[in-house]
Amino acid sequence: MGINNQNITIKKSTTTKINEVDFSNLSFGENFTDHMFECDYIDGEWTNAQIRPYGPISLDPSAKVFHYGQAIFEGMKAYKSVDGAVWLFRPEDNLIRLNKSAVRLAIPEFPKDLFFDGMELLLNIDKEWIQTTEGSSMYIRPFIIATEPGVSASPAKRYKFMFILSPAQSYYSGEVKVLFADKYSRSASGGVGFAKCAGNYAGQFYPTKLANDAGYQQVVWTDSSTHENLEEAGTMNVFFRVGDTLITAPTSDRILDGITRKSVIAIAEKAGYKVEIRDVSVYEIEEAAKNGTLLEMFGAGTAAVINPIVSFNFKGNDYDLPKLENSYASIIKKKITDIQTGKAEDPFGWKYAVRSI
Amino acid sequence: MGINNQNITIKKSTTTKINEVDFSNLSFGENFTDHMFECDYIDGEWTNAQIRPYGPISLDPSAKVFHYGQAIFEGMKAYKSVDGAVWLFRPEDNLIRLNKSAVRLAIPEFPKDLFFDGMELLLNIDKEWIQTTEGSSMYIRPFIIATEPGVSASPAKRYKFMFILSPAQSYYSGEVKVLFADKYSRSASGGVGFAKCAGNYAGQFYPTKLANDAGYQQVVWTDSSTHENLEEAGTMNVFFRVGDTLITAPTSDRILDGITRKSVIAIAEKAGYKVEIRDVSVYEIEEAAKNGTLLEMFGAGTAAVINPIVSFNFKGNDYDLPKLENSYASIIKKKITDIQTGKAEDPFGWKYAVRSI
Ligand SMILES: Cc1ncc(COP(=O)(O)O)c(C=O)c1O
Ligand SMILES: Cc1ncc(COP(=O)(O)O)c(C=O)c1O
Repeated sequence: MGINNQNITIKKSTTTKINEVDFSNLSFGENFTDHMFECDYIDGEWTNAQIRPYGPISLDPSAKVFHYGQAIFEGMKAYKSVDGAVWLFRPEDNLIRLNKSAVRLAIPEFPKDLFFDGMELLLNIDKEWIQTTEGSSMYIRPFIIATEPGVSASPAKRYKFMFILSPAQSYYSGEVKVLFADKYSRSASGGVGFAKCAGNYAGQFYPTKLANDAGYQQVVWTDSSTHENLEEAGTMNVFFRVGDTLITAPTSDRILDGITRKSVIAIAEKAGYKVEIRDVSVYEIEEAAKNGTLLEMFGAGTAAVINPIVSFNFKGNDYDLPKLENSYASIIKKKITDIQTGKAEDPFGWKYAVRSI
Repeated sequence: MGINNQNITIKKSTTTKINEVDFSNLSFGENFTDHMFECDYIDGEWTNAQIRPYGPISLDPSAKVFHYGQAIFEGMKAYKSVDGAVWLFRPEDNLIRLNKSAVRLAIPEFPKDLFFDGMELLLNIDKEWIQTTEGSSMYIRPFIIATEPGVSASPAKRYKFMFILSPAQSYYSGEVKVLFADKYSRSASGGVGFAKCAGNYAGQFYPTKLANDAGYQQVVWTDSSTHENLEEAGTMNVFFRVGDTLITAPTSDRILDGITRKSVIAIAEKAGYKVEIRDVSVYEIEEAAKNGTLLEMFGAGTAAVINPIVSFNFKGNDYDLPKLENSYASIIKKKITDIQTGKAEDPFGWKYAVRSI
């Protein structure tokens, strides 16, 4: 098996909350399973790996995560077939990205064996919680926080790694209208935009609230120097279809290297679509909207997979996108989710079978 | 009195840790007093204000502070005279800045009465901890964290505000050599650099560690677009003395509006020094270092008050600063600390007397 040669202590819950959950009506990220995985970094090593009943954690009020924001996370999904097999979608890419975030935030990297063993053991223990109905998945949230007490601004010496699990349904976010940022920014060149660190999200909430109040669900961030290049949305990378070409910004130190983005690119290229990975100017997109060649815009991320965008606002002007039959967004979404949910072959080798115990 | 008309519940500790602390040998931010102040934001209001024994807080592992970084703080100091009077230095400015940070991070603002009543009650209860020996002060750390459970990226509905207290000595950080940033950045235009939010600090740890490894104690951040303008250090604003002129960058949405910085400017102007608040180009400072007109550089912040800088590195070249008798840094530091510690008159009205109970 290989699992649990890492000395993971297991304390099982004597009760379950599973009957309190309405799986046909889940809000994203609000329900958690019966158990969680925890592991502490002390004296230079990851230790005390354990699975125990889901519940509160206790920290000193001076713990560095509260003051200096050393906190990183990942988001990934597990799927289960009716015959009980459980698998993940490109999980190693999440671990690699977690550890890139770790380096940039001066957090110790997390070991691969312990990541997989811990996650797979936990998924086995809370397997009943993974539903097999259409569109169901188990959202997995690995994260690391600085737990060392002390209010001096320097990297912590103690950390906690955790996995928590939240059952999810397919995610329909309604008609998404976006605002192109022309004042606020998400990240700087030389900053932490490419890292999945906690601070990147809090910084977006206020400008996003302003956008919400003006009738837009999301902000598409532009580069902070000129606000002329379209980069990504709050929790999604962004694609533009101009004519028959699919365009997306290259990753950089300002942009999260999304796993869904990479998968969209691979699927689009395999399907024979023309894909361009290059700077996307707001003016080019505005012009394409005006002359009718801008056919689609969509976001790509783990939570919603593909999120079509119906209109955008740039400097006070609204531009609607056409409603297409057989959009690239819908075709690509079906191809990805069919692979993720096991309905189609996986020619890319993206699925990872969770070992059962 | 006015204090405790806010219904602050008080639970006193039955023991004290004060005898375990070596006040002549304190590490900054590592010791905390016997009590703490806590207040929760629930259903749209700040409630449950209480002072209780200092100790751990318990949070759901999905609490938003751990994942999305909604966390802000302040740093301020209290001083006590031998006759028992306790006062603060410009505390209202800290509250104003806390609430500016709050708005930018989509956190509810904290009410002024509760801020002062809570802080003053706590200082009264832990008054024994405020030392009167030369250079002693009580560092006060107000902070707010998002406590609501749930891993969806949106502002929390629940928060916790706290005051914790840490006795401090005057802070000598040794000879400070700095590196001018030419690759990494602290903040973006349109970002959160002006806010005292947790994420701003974690993002600096890795580049600062690289600088430390190369022999520099601190990084002086430059603007992220061009790296040509000198902005501020990790926890200090920065001043340059060229000839007889003191120069510092204007505050902006990338720079923390430091209370020490403001105080330095006021004192320097009152002393008749020429002060210029304008963009400071790295090339100008390099040129001034080369032609001998760069006489001083120093950082200004609550922890160290004034921190003289002895050399800087710009793109691989090191430049030493002269050692001056009667430097502006030493004169200004004395003037500020004499006001803070009550040795000199306070012509500016900066001192705020803590009400005693
Ligand atoms: C800022 C940001 N961009 C893009 C994405 C999409 O990345 P992924 O496809 O790996 O989920 C995410 C995460 O979901 C994100 O937080
Ligand atoms: C980034 C940053 N700049 C400057 C300062 C100085 O501000 P103040 O003088 O108000 O302490 C601080 C805080 O100490 C800081 O964190």
